[in-house]
Amino acid sequence: MMPKAARLRELLERKEIARIVGSRDALTALLVEEAGFDGLWASSFELSASRALPDLGLLTMAELLVASSHVNEATALPLLADCDTGFGGKINVVRTVQQFEAAGIAGVCFEDKVFPKRNSFLAGQNLEDPQDFAGRIEAGARARRSEDFTIVARTEALIAGRGMDEALHRAHLYADAGADAILIHSKKPTPAEILEFLRAWRARTPVVVVPTTYPHWDLAEAQEAGVSMVIYANHALRASVTAMRDVLGEIHLQGGTGGVEDGIAPMKELFGLTGVAKWEGWSA
Amino acid sequence: MMPKAARLRELLERKEIARIVGSRDALTALLVEEAGFDGLWASSFELSASRALPDLGLLTMAELLVASSHVNEATALPLLADCDTGFGGKINVVRTVQQFEAAGIAGVCFEDKVFPKRNSFLAGQNLEDPQDFAGRIEAGARARRSEDFTIVARTEALIAGRGMDEALHRAHLYADAGADAILIHSKKPTPAEILEFLRAWRARTPVVVVPTTYPHWDLAEAQEAGVSMVIYANHALRASVTAMRDVLGEIHLQGGTGGVEDGIAPMKELFGLTGVAKWEGWSA
Amino acid sequence: MMPKAARLRELLERKEIARIVGSRDALTALLVEEAGFDGLWASSFELSASRALPDLGLLTMAELLVASSHVNEATALPLLADCDTGFGGKINVVRTVQQFEAAGIAGVCFEDKVFPKRNSFLAGQNLEDPQDFAGRIEAGARARRSEDFTIVARTEALIAGRGMDEALHRAHLYADAGADAILIHSKKPTPAEILEFLRAWRARTPVVVVPTTYPHWDLAEAQEAGVSMVIYANHALRASVTAMRDVLGEIHLQGGTGGVEDGIAPMKELFGLTGVAKWEGWSA
Amino acid sequence: MMPKAARLRELLERKEIARIVGSRDALTALLVEEAGFDGLWASSFELSASRALPDLGLLTMAELLVASSHVNEATALPLLADCDTGFGGKINVVRTVQQFEAAGIAGVCFEDKVFPKRNSFLAGQNLEDPQDFAGRIEAGARARRSEDFTIVARTEALIAGRGMDEALHRAHLYADAGADAILIHSKKPTPAEILEFLRAWRARTPVVVVPTTYPHWDLAEAQEAGVSMVIYANHALRASVTAMRDVLGEIHLQGGTGGVEDGIAPMKELFGLTGVAKWEGWSA
Repeated sequence: MMPKAARLRELLERKEIARIVGSRDALTALLVEEAGFDGLWASSFELSASRALPDLGLLTMAELLVASSHVNEATALPLLADCDTGFGGKINVVRTVQQFEAAGIAGVCFEDKVFPKRNSFLAGQNLEDPQDFAGRIEAGARARRSEDFTIVARTEALIAGRGMDEALHRAHLYADAGADAILIHSKKPTPAEILEFLRAWRARTPVVVVPTTYPHWDLAEAQEAGVSMVIYANHALRASVTAMRDVLGEIHLQGGTGGVEDGIAPMKELFGLTGVAKWEGWSA
Repeated sequence: MMPKAARLRELLERKEIARIVGSRDALTALLVEEAGFDGLWASSFELSASRALPDLGLLTMAELLVASSHVNEATALPLLADCDTGFGGKINVVRTVQQFEAAGIAGVCFEDKVFPKRNSFLAGQNLEDPQDFAGRIEAGARARRSEDFTIVARTEALIAGRGMDEALHRAHLYADAGADAILIHSKKPTPAEILEFLRAWRARTPVVVVPTTYPHWDLAEAQEAGVSMVIYANHALRASVTAMRDVLGEIHLQGGTGGVEDGIAPMKELFGLTGVAKWEGWSA
Repeated sequence: MMPKAARLRELLERKEIARIVGSRDALTALLVEEAGFDGLWASSFELSASRALPDLGLLTMAELLVASSHVNEATALPLLADCDTGFGGKINVVRTVQQFEAAGIAGVCFEDKVFPKRNSFLAGQNLEDPQDFAGRIEAGARARRSEDFTIVARTEALIAGRGMDEALHRAHLYADAGADAILIHSKKPTPAEILEFLRAWRARTPVVVVPTTYPHWDLAEAQEAGVSMVIYANHALRASVTAMRDVLGEIHLQGGTGGVEDGIAPMKELFGLTGVAKWEGWSA
Repeated sequence: MMPKAARLRELLERKEIARIVGSRDALTALLVEEAGFDGLWASSFELSASRALPDLGLLTMAELLVASSHVNEATALPLLADCDTGFGGKINVVRTVQQFEAAGIAGVCFEDKVFPKRNSFLAGQNLEDPQDFAGRIEAGARARRSEDFTIVARTEALIAGRGMDEALHRAHLYADAGADAILIHSKKPTPAEILEFLRAWRARTPVVVVPTTYPHWDLAEAQEAGVSMVIYANHALRASVTAMRDVLGEIHLQGGTGGVEDGIAPMKELFGLTGVAKWEGWSA
């Protein structure tokens, strides 16, 4: 079987657009695989939320590594790990790349904000010096063992309101430094500025997008426009929160679980998902 | 504020029935607290499922400790941790008690099955020798630092089809050995055998039940019958699986997240839940 | 028994000078306790070296927390944990304090260098803005649960060659911000500049020193001069490296361990140190 | 570069005897590599002692995995991990193999004692049923991804005083089940019973020995007799304990470190060992 790093690279480089999904734990990863998606995203927003923490750069590299590894080992899908700003200077990026690659994770994504970063949908976005950030990308690229291991550079220039020229300037710097793909992030309600970026970028590298705020963009159009990969970053978690809130409220009100049983997965379904039969096969 | 161990003890000893809820991660714990429940249960079934593993005694004490601690640190609610069979002999139980107590967890529950255990809803239940198990309970009780730290002994005699006399005999042995409460487990569709146990037990210690298979038991009746604590062991997880499955299927089919946005928690809700404002207050 | 945090505070505030020792793991802690010292120091230099890493800010808060906890749980001695620069901004300091305190560690030490820091004996020392650093100390002090939990502010002004006025200015700022003690670090071969600092400081708070480069300073003189606590930061590790290097070289050369047996601790000694008899007592 | 698993296999299969050394942490591994040895051994005795715990089966698989991984990632040497009895039944062995292999560790060793095991030099050795143990070896061998990953079966028949026939019977069963090598353990003061085993074994598989109690056996003779690999299991740790004990005693007595400085590694040596220059090269 092709190593996961090679599979992620193939997803980025193939003609057909790929779709990967934020998975806050191994169980979510099983469901993402079952639904037929191409890969996994380990989001610092989701992993922080799972620890009851805001996405403000509180979880350390080591904690994200452990959580991402748990997601990674659940399925055969390749995983791209959200590594925030790289957790410090060049040597911190180098250690991050070494550790995530050694864990069998297919690739990492670094974003050009000042450490500790803030979630892109919060006010107060500070961009890192572009040369400094490019230096980190370059160091990270040199530090990997296999050339298949993917390093995605994410620019937050549009998020920070710094304009298209800045976004393109930064993206080119990062590609020069060795980034395998550019993640161009936007929080506009339409993909207009993404489209503008894509036209100017002329497919210099694969491009990744996170259409959280422009969810109605047609997949075929995105592919046509030059997007290689789409990340559905946080929807499984958000679906889960709503469902748990509803069910917990109902149980509390009703004084029992009798009224919710029909709307939730039966235990048998969980035994199936978690592979009871497969594991019991080892003892047969 | 009263230490968590003292609060769990109070929940068990007060007249009013207490309700605690299985929480597979810190985020779930936030929702359990928000819904108004009394405490948290860290279930080996749920923690295993979150790691994409079946509930067959695969997760080690150390892994359950880390996962339970993450749940525990999210809220002010006391947490009772499911510690399977105690992970080996007396000294393994001793180390388990020392480690869970040091982590600020309020109490642990050990069950009288042979290590490695199988989920109670699967076939093939092997009970531990009752004297051996009582010896572990006794060692665990001696090993704690604070007398408030709770040790619950769970008997699986009814689950294993060994009858009421066996269940009572075991429960008395474990109470003699120092168990603070008895968890009597049943997989019958009604609480009939639980009621029989309670009548014979005569409130010698607080009693805990897990009404997964008899969800329609009225809370007031359970309290009246002598139940001190009810565990809703796996419902939040099961609600979450159903919701994620649905949403992931829809996203895959529709080629985007536009159609699911209205049914899932908005990002803003997550920012609230994870305390962005509270954390930002530190920097103000 | 007095909680560890209260004991560390007492060590700092009592008249008699206290001596704590860098312990890279729990085994070292046992030997430090056996030798009669007052407490433990979890040094980022030693913990990094134990991971084969240089002391350049590579280990994350989470990794230092786990390693420090392992040291802490081995004995009844209080532990002061080296927390580098605080791992980021105010909120990272807040989380650090919360996590180390929850782990039962008695106190933490933050130093006023730019993240990621470099070991004080290496060239290229960059000091943090003093107001920013004081803000972190203030946030850390507010974040603790118990007032007994100690926060030591370490100034590297002398290490960075910034002079006595700067050192004193910073130390006062940090004490204003709520630091419980000041660690004044020097890499001079005599304690002259430490003495100058102590005279000007006039015992405003307890003072901690790390006499690695001025090892001949008499303990009674240090106490007389106003030192509350001495840290022997890295000597056990360095002794260990020399001994292991020698023994490994000899074994390799001789083609066997026959020639080294007499110079190394027998297995029986290790059984004693690790408490085989005590643990077996649980099963008796 | 050849993967570590392939290198360990080569060490076992080549004509020349190989020597691997117990390394309780990554720093020790650096010194073992520097001394010129062929590989690393992650000993449950040493890893337990480093946690201030006796070698009585207290550390879980997950804890040994983390500690072994830290040792493994420090050098290019292959590591053989001591996995005690396999931590439970077949499925626990399967998970152990999956996890250690995924961590890049070259091989694991399981011993045929009852879980939780006791150190071989302590009284009270209980052997596992040989068929049950062989079943675990077989399951472990099937569970690995790469055929290069090594599974060593260790028989404690001689340690438990069960005689040569039992030892040979068990070793053959384990080889039938797919063990790549047999570790035959003895606590006699001479290699006589090892020699007897080797003569009868007729090199069916590579044989590993741990000459802790017969340290004067000549390496060339061992090779000649059919030993493929020698493990120096605990000498670096024992050297370290003696050195730390001496130095800590002296520092305590003298009231300072002045008298020990000349006998311990200078800081500069540690900067060299931990690769300060190499890491700084990344930032150049």
